[in-house]
Amino acid sequence: MLKGAIVLGGAAATPALAAGRDRTERWGVHEIVLSGPSTGNPIDDVTVSAAFERDGNRLVVPGFYDGDGTYRIRFSPPDVGQWTWKTSSSSAALNGRSGAFQCVAPSSGNHGPVRVTADGYHFAYADGTPFRQIGTTCYSWALQSDAMCAQTLATLRTAPFNKMRMCVFPNVPSVATNPFVKTGPGLHDWDPKRIDPAFFRRFEDRIVRLGALGIEADIILYHPYDEKRGYSDMSRADDERYLRYVAARFGAFRNVWWSMGNEYDAIKTKTVADWDHLFGVLQAADPHDRLRSIHQIIVYYDHRKPWITHASVQNGSAVTDDVPAQLHRSFALKPVIFDEVLYEGNSDKRWGRLDSQGLVDRFWHGLIGGTYVGHSETFNPDRNADFSWLGQGGKLVGTSAPRLAFLRKIMEAGPTPGIEPIQTWWGYHLGGKEFEYYLRYFGADQPTEWAVNLPGRDKDPRNTYRADIIDTWNMTVTPVEGTFRMAKRDAYEFHDPDRPTIKLPGKKWTAVRLVKV
Amino acid sequence: MLKGAIVLGGAAATPALAAGRDRTERWGVHEIVLSGPSTGNPIDDVTVSAAFERDGNRLVVPGFYDGDGTYRIRFSPPDVGQWTWKTSSSSAALNGRSGAFQCVAPSSGNHGPVRVTADGYHFAYADGTPFRQIGTTCYSWALQSDAMCAQTLATLRTAPFNKMRMCVFPNVPSVATNPFVKTGPGLHDWDPKRIDPAFFRRFEDRIVRLGALGIEADIILYHPYDEKRGYSDMSRADDERYLRYVAARFGAFRNVWWSMGNEYDAIKTKTVADWDHLFGVLQAADPHDRLRSIHQIIVYYDHRKPWITHASVQNGSAVTDDVPAQLHRSFALKPVIFDEVLYEGNSDKRWGRLDSQGLVDRFWHGLIGGTYVGHSETFNPDRNADFSWLGQGGKLVGTSAPRLAFLRKIMEAGPTPGIEPIQTWWGYHLGGKEFEYYLRYFGADQPTEWAVNLPGRDKDPRNTYRADIIDTWNMTVTPVEGTFRMAKRDAYEFHDPDRPTIKLPGKKWTAVRLVKV
Repeated sequence: MLKGAIVLGGAAATPALAAGRDRTERWGVHEIVLSGPSTGNPIDDVTVSAAFERDGNRLVVPGFYDGDGTYRIRFSPPDVGQWTWKTSSSSAALNGRSGAFQCVAPSSGNHGPVRVTADGYHFAYADGTPFRQIGTTCYSWALQSDAMCAQTLATLRTAPFNKMRMCVFPNVPSVATNPFVKTGPGLHDWDPKRIDPAFFRRFEDRIVRLGALGIEADIILYHPYDEKRGYSDMSRADDERYLRYVAARFGAFRNVWWSMGNEYDAIKTKTVADWDHLFGVLQAADPHDRLRSIHQIIVYYDHRKPWITHASVQNGSAVTDDVPAQLHRSFALKPVIFDEVLYEGNSDKRWGRLDSQGLVDRFWHGLIGGTYVGHSETFNPDRNADFSWLGQGGKLVGTSAPRLAFLRKIMEAGPTPGIEPIQTWWGYHLGGKEFEYYLRYFGADQPTEWAVNLPGRDKDPRNTYRADIIDTWNMTVTPVEGTFRMAKRDAYEFHDPDRPTIKLPGKKWTAVRLVKV
Repeated sequence: MLKGAIVLGGAAATPALAAGRDRTERWGVHEIVLSGPSTGNPIDDVTVSAAFERDGNRLVVPGFYDGDGTYRIRFSPPDVGQWTWKTSSSSAALNGRSGAFQCVAPSSGNHGPVRVTADGYHFAYADGTPFRQIGTTCYSWALQSDAMCAQTLATLRTAPFNKMRMCVFPNVPSVATNPFVKTGPGLHDWDPKRIDPAFFRRFEDRIVRLGALGIEADIILYHPYDEKRGYSDMSRADDERYLRYVAARFGAFRNVWWSMGNEYDAIKTKTVADWDHLFGVLQAADPHDRLRSIHQIIVYYDHRKPWITHASVQNGSAVTDDVPAQLHRSFALKPVIFDEVLYEGNSDKRWGRLDSQGLVDRFWHGLIGGTYVGHSETFNPDRNADFSWLGQGGKLVGTSAPRLAFLRKIMEAGPTPGIEPIQTWWGYHLGGKEFEYYLRYFGADQPTEWAVNLPGRDKDPRNTYRADIIDTWNMTVTPVEGTFRMAKRDAYEFHDPDRPTIKLPGKKWTAVRLVKV
């Protein structure tokens, strides 16, 4: 029997996992490995958890069965210092074990898990570093061959994306297709009671490798695209077992987010009440309290429900302007990510043939509206989106990614925790931080000048700003000479009476940035 | 002591009230008048209600104290036939009374109360007649002098509006300002325990007179605009007494809607939990189950809460396009009324100086998005909106009303129960009923032609349509010669290959209507 604290090493040295038996870095993974019963179905028959304690802070973390009599309990310590632990189990071999470890300061690049910021509409890592979401989707990338996965990871290494939406269950042709032990040759011949640890071990390796690249793994737990296998059509008890398993197995990795369903409302075997129930199961099984959302095709889930941490939205038209984007914040009262806004690509399907400009344009409108947007692409020689970055990962073909990298730099140089919409009601199309920083985005318009009228009342500071003209497509930032010294224009606005306008190049995809000097 | 069924006659012959002691028309008001204690504070000391029964249908209706020892119980019978009733009361003089009446067919023009339609996004009267909402707001019209009220009613008689938003508590200078008995000369000197029946008797006369004009009375129960008097800042017990009183007194009138608050989030003495509680109180006190909503300034109330029947929204920018308008349906999953979208007027405030075109334009965009919009105007020689149609009623000065009458006719000639948004995601800007009726609205654009590409898949009917060009401002409908015979255009669309476009006049505020032939 193996006893005590051992850190998972198989997935290589990554910031998600700390080194050392007795020392684990803050927000790393401290793993306890125990040997126990291997007969019967340990997943159903054996419960095991550990209570971790430090200075009155106590978290009870469920463990999971990893096959061959091995049980693991994974804990990501939220604070530095000495943590003690003690197990509880239905099995005498696993019960009453105890130990301790030292949680040390995080290593460079480890900023902790992403959380919602105090203002309620943005994200930051636990150490306070803003998280400026520029996501992508490769639904079944983690289920492809090792070579293909390596290619995807190599692509991501130089791509701008810091969140990856990825399915546990395959939605397109894949190599790893069996989360549950097969019972026969048919697609539907599998036993939901017999979770296959090898499948999930492989999947978590992908989570860890994303973490090493600084990419959040937005794990999609259900989807409607594989009715033949029926993984999303299990019974309630089988769903609960599955959710508890993934929560125990993956939840300690700090880059994990939970997406309960992709197009949840297209899964005909589950009702909204079922989803609500499953959120409760997941929340109870996840002491690390990772971010949770759910993605729709038509019927918006109620994002105000307390277990939803942020809105994950599919909407192709809502981010063609900042007004409808911002509205999602008004309804959700939470951060909003437009995880699906049509894809850059050449698909024969209309949802997969957006041009690159159209995709980048959506990111900018979303930004001005105080929200976040997600990318994917569907290029394929045969126009078949199932074999593309969206489905399987691999290489990027489109031209949006560099523009999104440019956008990300703009975001990173902007206010924290993020861009706020500014007086959306009044048609300004401005985002930023009032009286400090403004972005005005013109989309497909081609203005030759812009009247620099900023919202401001008598009580507000009349500041002075410098300006940049941003070509979001050609990725240039051109400073405007001099400054704009604001004075009262009318009851609602400030402007500089000596230079009330900025000349613009009359080109599409132009933005103006004003920064207080 | 007066016993038995007497129908309220004071407010004149109106469709809201049926005639006759023993006969009440369906959806009219059957009123029981009883004499009881007049000492102490009958509103707090005496409870009285009646159970009305017919064919196993049983409703318990609370009564209210009307002063001078008079108690009234008002019931609006939902079905024709013989109804029996029996009172329960804490007072022996009011307890155990019983009687019966005959509910007869409704008279002409009585379509019953407005309800949400089965599809979930529109309104219809109880008899099935569609209710096409074209609302207006005169916050304190009912609290003005009788002469001024008469002028407002005369204006409404020829105006297009079928819903009036109106406050119980004054928000601008008014004649009727004391719902509660005064206890001193100061604005805040009044006793919330002593409701003044005369104030509410006068108010209900206005409700009834609106009903006679076929106008729904959207009664605003609280608002933040009179902190000096503080009617919206009462204690919970006082709020409960007030709500129970208005529910018992007004709830039987079939044209009553409840708007719990105007700019509820600007009332600093109440939390969302308070509002939720008050909805519960109102719902329990209103066996007639009238429509319920609440109107915000900034923070959207959660329209999915079960006691909300429809979303009442203030938003100046959401109805400048059908996309954001439609989104409100996606979030609320209920009918949406944009009750405040800026006002036509000449106010010195930016919320009250929209031009008439801008207001009419919002109604059209809202319509295409499957929602409804509300009007008001703020014209005043001194640009003071407090003395205008919005505040006090009177005469209309603006030029939007005839255009809204025209719009209402277009709506009434359209599909039932209302206009549905059509594939909003894909930029069609079409509303209607697929494969039967389409409206395309162009707003401030000035197109000279429109490519008639309608969404349609292989399985869908390729119908033939006639077309009209609608000038929404000049109120003309110009038929287009011939018909459009749809054929497959591509995987997603139909068109007529022989005439793929319609020539348009290149003018603002143009719409095209297609009707299946």
